[in-house]
Amino acid sequence: MTPERLARLNSVLDRRQPDLTVITHFVHKQRNTSAIVRNADAVGIQQVHAVAAREDYRAFRGTGMGSHNWVQVRRHDSLAQALEAVRAAAMQILAAHPGEDACDFREVDYTRPTALLLGTERAGLDEEALAAADQCILVPMMGMVESYNVSVAAGIILAEAQRQREAAGLYEHCRLDAATRQRLFFEWAHPQLRKFCRERGLAYPPLAEDGELTDGPGWYASVRAGTAACEDHREP
Amino acid sequence: MTPERLARLNSVLDRRQPDLTVITHFVHKQRNTSAIVRNADAVGIQQVHAVAAREDYRAFRGTGMGSHNWVQVRRHDSLAQALEAVRAAAMQILAAHPGEDACDFREVDYTRPTALLLGTERAGLDEEALAAADQCILVPMMGMVESYNVSVAAGIILAEAQRQREAAGLYEHCRLDAATRQRLFFEWAHPQLRKFCRERGLAYPPLAEDGELTDGPGWYASVRAGTAACEDHREP
Repeated sequence: MTPERLARLNSVLDRRQPDLTVITHFVHKQRNTSAIVRNADAVGIQQVHAVAAREDYRAFRGTGMGSHNWVQVRRHDSLAQALEAVRAAAMQILAAHPGEDACDFREVDYTRPTALLLGTERAGLDEEALAAADQCILVPMMGMVESYNVSVAAGIILAEAQRQREAAGLYEHCRLDAATRQRLFFEWAHPQLRKFCRERGLAYPPLAEDGELTDGPGWYASVRAGTAACEDHREP
Repeated sequence: MTPERLARLNSVLDRRQPDLTVITHFVHKQRNTSAIVRNADAVGIQQVHAVAAREDYRAFRGTGMGSHNWVQVRRHDSLAQALEAVRAAAMQILAAHPGEDACDFREVDYTRPTALLLGTERAGLDEEALAAADQCILVPMMGMVESYNVSVAAGIILAEAQRQREAAGLYEHCRLDAATRQRLFFEWAHPQLRKFCRERGLAYPPLAEDGELTDGPGWYASVRAGTAACEDHREP
């Protein structure tokens, strides 16, 4: 790994925002998720929640300029599951939905732990989703067309969240817990080794300051001998 | 036409911003133009300049939730032609391009007559385009992926332009000249009659306050008699 690459990985990890996320609730329209994952990466979001059937979700991942490599997309079978996850993290839930009670997206405080809930462009969000939201927000529109493309709306709202968080100094120091930061660094720096370990249920080997394995030959020998440490990598 | 429809057309026309535009310079990637035309409509842009070969452009219009009905897309064979058009309107040219001299997109004054120049995501803008720009602007990014989708970047930048123009009161009164406003009102209110007139080289008939033809039967009689006024509707 070059020093430039090492510095870049560290710099991006140190700007990740564990208390900012997006929930996509598209129902059979997963192609928009990739564009939104790319927006999420750009503002430092580490985890996106996608409500989608397993097969719909699989069909559409893999675009978005590789952003799936950098942002964890956590799939949920139902909106209720996704909401439970963000509520467990004490996040406010903001629904992008131009209803009567909606306020201008710039009037909201995004420095609080926040989940942005997005539905399809035409159908919008359903009753269940709107009931779950703490606040509906809208991007003001001056034209004839009644809505933005959903990934454009997400980009506009998240850019404001980034502006507020930057002003509040939230990108100035690492906000991931030590274990998560260490795990992500390993996975970003060594994607093939990540795959190797996950397929075999092995714990990730320790890394030195320069990002390389502390004792590569020793670790591979322990893998061959069946004495390497094990770990369950299944995500929640 | 219902009173609600009449009020809506008038309200949108009264917020159109003749001194704000976008130039798309994609070269064989016109599918992004439709998404950008939709963004343009949303912030009150009436005319977008698309640098594209005639056949490339034709292949991709017609999406974007009908936004082509509300925003004029003026096609140019070359970037030089598009630049000439916006320079004739004394617009500053802002290139969305993350070069060394680029400034944060929020540091620019969008209340000035402004053309936003957009290139492809991967290749970006070429030397000719960058040389023509008065200023390069960038949307700050905190993640691993190096660029936004171009229609998302356009949406983020134009939303800031809208914010500034709203704060400056530029949506509070009609900014179109009277002839343009009258023509657009006719075309929006009577799209089929627009087509009828254009195919026959006829001037649009006068409209009453309620948006309907002042004297429909009389005008149709004059068309049949070949005495209706003529007009060349070709756009520049």
